Amino acid sequence: MRFVELAAKRESCRKYKKMPVEREKLLACVEAARMSPSACNSQPWSFVLADDADLTSKVAETLQEKITGLNSFTDDCGAFVILVEENANLSSKLGGRFKDQEFAQMDIGIAAQSMCLAATDEGLGSCIIGWFHEKALKALLDIPIKKRIRLVIALGYPDSDHPRAKSRKPLETVLHINRW
Amino acid sequence: MRFVELAAKRESCRKYKKMPVEREKLLACVEAARMSPSACNSQPWSFVLADDADLTSKVAETLQEKITGLNSFTDDCGAFVILVEENANLSSKLGGRFKDQEFAQMDIGIAAQSMCLAATDEGLGSCIIGWFHEKALKALLDIPIKKRIRLVIALGYPDSDHPRAKSRKPLETVLHINRW
Repeated sequence: MRFVELAAKRESCRKYKKMPVEREKLLACVEAARMSPSACNSQPWSFVLADDADLTSKVAETLQEKITGLNSFTDDCGAFVILVEENANLSSKLGGRFKDQEFAQMDIGIAAQSMCLAATDEGLGSCIIGWFHEKALKALLDIPIKKRIRLVIALGYPDSDHPRAKSRKPLETVLHINRW
Repeated sequence: MRFVELAAKRESCRKYKKMPVEREKLLACVEAARMSPSACNSQPWSFVLADDADLTSKVAETLQEKITGLNSFTDDCGAFVILVEENANLSSKLGGRFKDQEFAQMDIGIAAQSMCLAATDEGLGSCIIGWFHEKALKALLDIPIKKRIRLVIALGYPDSDHPRAKSRKPLETVLHINRW
């Protein structure tokens, strides 16, 4: 499969079949993230994989807002990977401070996209979630209180065979060629 | 090709053949970035593609440190894509402020990884560069002074057929299963 096809199949999936996901497939997703590039190769990340059925239902609760129904789809996800920021190495940290850039967060984004593309390749749906109750999620998974959770990746078998058309800004509004 | 093979082939390439890259291939890389997911689908990015030979040599200068030789390989790159952060939409911005997360920078990371994987698929080498002379680069390309350049992607034909083995932290140090 050409990359363009894989990228088109990858979508933020918000409808899952309530069923477990094979551990092997989940590890393939984590592996793709682990092998991602990062600023000065500092790999400022840890991954917490939650795939125990009792646990995933509790994780789902920390991702939801009952009043608005936000992320209620996560009740049906087979697994979650929590992306925790780790200390970057010195060159990445100093460079980021000097240049006012959050390299570690860009690195987490890079790893998240690798993971989602690997999920698509494994026949899984995925959704990158940035809204969660961080304190509750840390407590649930024993993640040290001082660390920051940056993203949660929801994973599972999608309850749809057809990717939606993607809604994106037109090329001409986002691309400048050889000058602004 | 399975995704795992593509991801293994993608590496930070620092040795290029000094030759131009077909515009069509470069646009495929930009397209992959444009179709990437982002927080609340806010797509907080613009891309400046520099592939004019006179211009790329000037862009390369803004990426280098003469004394240390940092990024001197960019002299041979056929093209660069400059990733500029744009204002996120309201929900992403408010959410980020409320939760102390830099969603736009994570989104830029996501788009960068899509672009590099597309480059690999097109037979191109790529390198994500986070160290550059931002003011000089903005002046060179007429990028509005108030905007932030987050990353520059170097692109070109690699001067090597064999991807290096990747140096990464071992799985057991970055992965926790079902609890920290």
